[in-house]
Amino acid sequence: MQEKIRAIVESRWFSILIQLLILASALTFAFESGKQTPDYISDLFPIIDMGFLFLFAVEYMLRIWAAPKKWQFIFSFFGIVDLLSILPAMLFLLPQFRMLRILRFLRIFRILKATRFILAVDRLTTALDDVKRELFALVILSLMLVYLAACGIHYFEKETQPEAFGSIFGSMWWAIVTLTTVGYGDVYPTTTGGKIFTALVTLIGVGLIAIPSGLLASVLTEARSERRKSEEIETHGKEED
Amino acid sequence: MQEKIRAIVESRWFSILIQLLILASALTFAFESGKQTPDYISDLFPIIDMGFLFLFAVEYMLRIWAAPKKWQFIFSFFGIVDLLSILPAMLFLLPQFRMLRILRFLRIFRILKATRFILAVDRLTTALDDVKRELFALVILSLMLVYLAACGIHYFEKETQPEAFGSIFGSMWWAIVTLTTVGYGDVYPTTTGGKIFTALVTLIGVGLIAIPSGLLASVLTEARSERRKSEEIETHGKEED
Amino acid sequence: MQEKIRAIVESRWFSILIQLLILASALTFAFESGKQTPDYISDLFPIIDMGFLFLFAVEYMLRIWAAPKKWQFIFSFFGIVDLLSILPAMLFLLPQFRMLRILRFLRIFRILKATRFILAVDRLTTALDDVKRELFALVILSLMLVYLAACGIHYFEKETQPEAFGSIFGSMWWAIVTLTTVGYGDVYPTTTGGKIFTALVTLIGVGLIAIPSGLLASVLTEARSERRKSEEIETHGKEED
Amino acid sequence: MQEKIRAIVESRWFSILIQLLILASALTFAFESGKQTPDYISDLFPIIDMGFLFLFAVEYMLRIWAAPKKWQFIFSFFGIVDLLSILPAMLFLLPQFRMLRILRFLRIFRILKATRFILAVDRLTTALDDVKRELFALVILSLMLVYLAACGIHYFEKETQPEAFGSIFGSMWWAIVTLTTVGYGDVYPTTTGGKIFTALVTLIGVGLIAIPSGLLASVLTEARSERRKSEEIETHGKEED
Repeated sequence: MQEKIRAIVESRWFSILIQLLILASALTFAFESGKQTPDYISDLFPIIDMGFLFLFAVEYMLRIWAAPKKWQFIFSFFGIVDLLSILPAMLFLLPQFRMLRILRFLRIFRILKATRFILAVDRLTTALDDVKRELFALVILSLMLVYLAACGIHYFEKETQPEAFGSIFGSMWWAIVTLTTVGYGDVYPTTTGGKIFTALVTLIGVGLIAIPSGLLASVLTEARSERRKSEEIETHGKEED
Repeated sequence: MQEKIRAIVESRWFSILIQLLILASALTFAFESGKQTPDYISDLFPIIDMGFLFLFAVEYMLRIWAAPKKWQFIFSFFGIVDLLSILPAMLFLLPQFRMLRILRFLRIFRILKATRFILAVDRLTTALDDVKRELFALVILSLMLVYLAACGIHYFEKETQPEAFGSIFGSMWWAIVTLTTVGYGDVYPTTTGGKIFTALVTLIGVGLIAIPSGLLASVLTEARSERRKSEEIETHGKEED
Repeated sequence: MQEKIRAIVESRWFSILIQLLILASALTFAFESGKQTPDYISDLFPIIDMGFLFLFAVEYMLRIWAAPKKWQFIFSFFGIVDLLSILPAMLFLLPQFRMLRILRFLRIFRILKATRFILAVDRLTTALDDVKRELFALVILSLMLVYLAACGIHYFEKETQPEAFGSIFGSMWWAIVTLTTVGYGDVYPTTTGGKIFTALVTLIGVGLIAIPSGLLASVLTEARSERRKSEEIETHGKEED
Repeated sequence: MQEKIRAIVESRWFSILIQLLILASALTFAFESGKQTPDYISDLFPIIDMGFLFLFAVEYMLRIWAAPKKWQFIFSFFGIVDLLSILPAMLFLLPQFRMLRILRFLRIFRILKATRFILAVDRLTTALDDVKRELFALVILSLMLVYLAACGIHYFEKETQPEAFGSIFGSMWWAIVTLTTVGYGDVYPTTTGGKIFTALVTLIGVGLIAIPSGLLASVLTEARSERRKSEEIETHGKEED
């Protein structure tokens, strides 16, 4: 019996079914947030939500049942994710806990465990782990730059635009929006000093903040080509036997 | 006779002629869209369009005639593209089908079959194919990030800016404009919570969304250098014979 | 005598002097453009300009004098650049030709011939040459994307925003500002269809347009490491002799 | 005694303590800049500042005491940083020197000397040093592009928007905001000529300005993989002994 359930739980169509359920649940949540839905549909949302709750609860129980070491599954990353995604849903009959339903979206990470991605996600994780020191140093450097840029612009612009650059914390909003090159245009320097400072900071900062993605991309390519080489060697070795 | 036509169809100047025709057709379409063109010119547009239709129809027939296996050409990618690009044009005598002329621009992809690009496009396709799993995982991660960012900003901003962040679908517009760093500035967070959330999400998301281009660039370089090495080995091998 | 002049013209301090002159000339041009300069300074600008004209003319003559094959220098890239940068300056006594002075800035490229950059610029040129086919294919793909994006947004937005998206040429301004992620915010889609189209196009296009820089960066690194290896081999070879 | 102090100064917990102090000092500075802090807190700021001054002075003296060659430490990079970060603080009892406190943030660079980052920062510095010629050439090219873009847009837009594009220096603000893809939207071309010029300049310039980050990322990956290989060889060598 347990064997049979495990075969079902680990089967491909079950995985696809759960992914579709997660997607449907995410779409329902998105539709529910809008105010334009007609009443006869929005009345259905609590019932649909109940349905998802029931299905995810059943899935959770099946997974516990199927697990050879039950406690190990319960305290594993996905065990906790699954529990967190149904527990708040159970509480949501009380309106004050409705917001907790957001935890259900932790479950979205299950998609990444699908057999098709598992290898690529694994490579991404390895690449991330491989350059974690460089990434950490770059993140610290970026945060320092954001702080110093905020200090600088605060100094130049605090008198002409006190509402936007009056405090360093406020100026950090400008610093992040500028250095990530998003540039909404809600706040920007207007004094000559502020503009020259911005020019210098962006020319340096934009380059600094773009390094991590390039680093991850390079390491990913390298890891892939190394693995391919070692696979070729293994394949040759086996073929020669 | 068939041999002769094939020689013409596959010749370099025919390929250049068709490319110029596509370009001219694209420019005409662009000029036609504007309202400023004087009447004596805009009266000519249907006639010019008829001309392009006739020429593309002639090209399609020549290609069928020249093809050794006619049905194989008709159902090939470019065979269908060519048919789709003249079929709606034939219907456009009836005004309600005029919009279908847009399908004609599928033909623009023929440019990529030009002998000069064929190698580079081939490399791009191979590079794309080579990292398709990683790209797919990154696309899924990006879409998840867009969804979660939209959920988060909806939570923080729905009360102060209900028209922009009132629904999760509406917030996804903000999420995409922000995470691609376009940052039009039509919608942006105004609450402190929303700004802090945006700061965190952009610092992570901007990096994530930039990885695919870096990945493709790296793989492209690698593929090129590997091919060059194998070409060198082949060349040496042949020279030594 | 000619030998002596060539020694001067090819000396390091002459090169630095000319670079400073170009810089000073560029700064003067920038200051002249502003309207805020007081009269007693702006009256000096024509005289200063005359000075630069005289100095660049002297430099040009010295270079001709110093060149072993005079005609070869005159028709070389930098020979023409030098001539173009003084010829219009000579005409500028007549006010209607003043704008031609902008040609003088062609001379700015001389900076790149300075001994310190020559190697790096050479590597950049080689890297550019090395991937020119891929770059060309990517440029064509990008232009096609700009055109198709403009067609699409024109279709979705022409009725609600006819002044910005009323023609395909007008929509191309939006397409370029969006796909390069500049995103001024002067034009952006407002219909739901236009927003969904923009979301799809940016997610693809932003990635496509970022590939060339990544490609150049990768090839540059590769070329550098290959050259270093061959230098090491040469050095070892010589040391072993 | 000196040995004991050196052991303390070079210990891990002392390093963490100083980092926390720097962080606390940065946060206090940020809070102090805001106007919203209630009086009973803002009255405390001078006293808290005195505290930081005292602690950093103690740290400086301890470091001198612990240093085996005292003058060498005093004139080292971090010795000067430490002095500059307490000297102005000592003057700040006089209100006109308050701004000098900003020098204290030089001390923020101490964070990078923490044992955890030292290797990654070292790699970053090596990578930076390794491509400094290419980076310098790219920076010069970028500055030339910014200047020429400013000249061009000044020519096209000076009549329609004299306040934004009336001088070349003013146009350089637009050029930097555009070419780094920040695109606030405070200034943008409105004439057809200016838009076409912008389209050309951004398509080239955006690519050029993104190369340095890609270059640094590539070199960083390469350096890391080379070092790893040489480490492996060393490890094998030692193991084989």
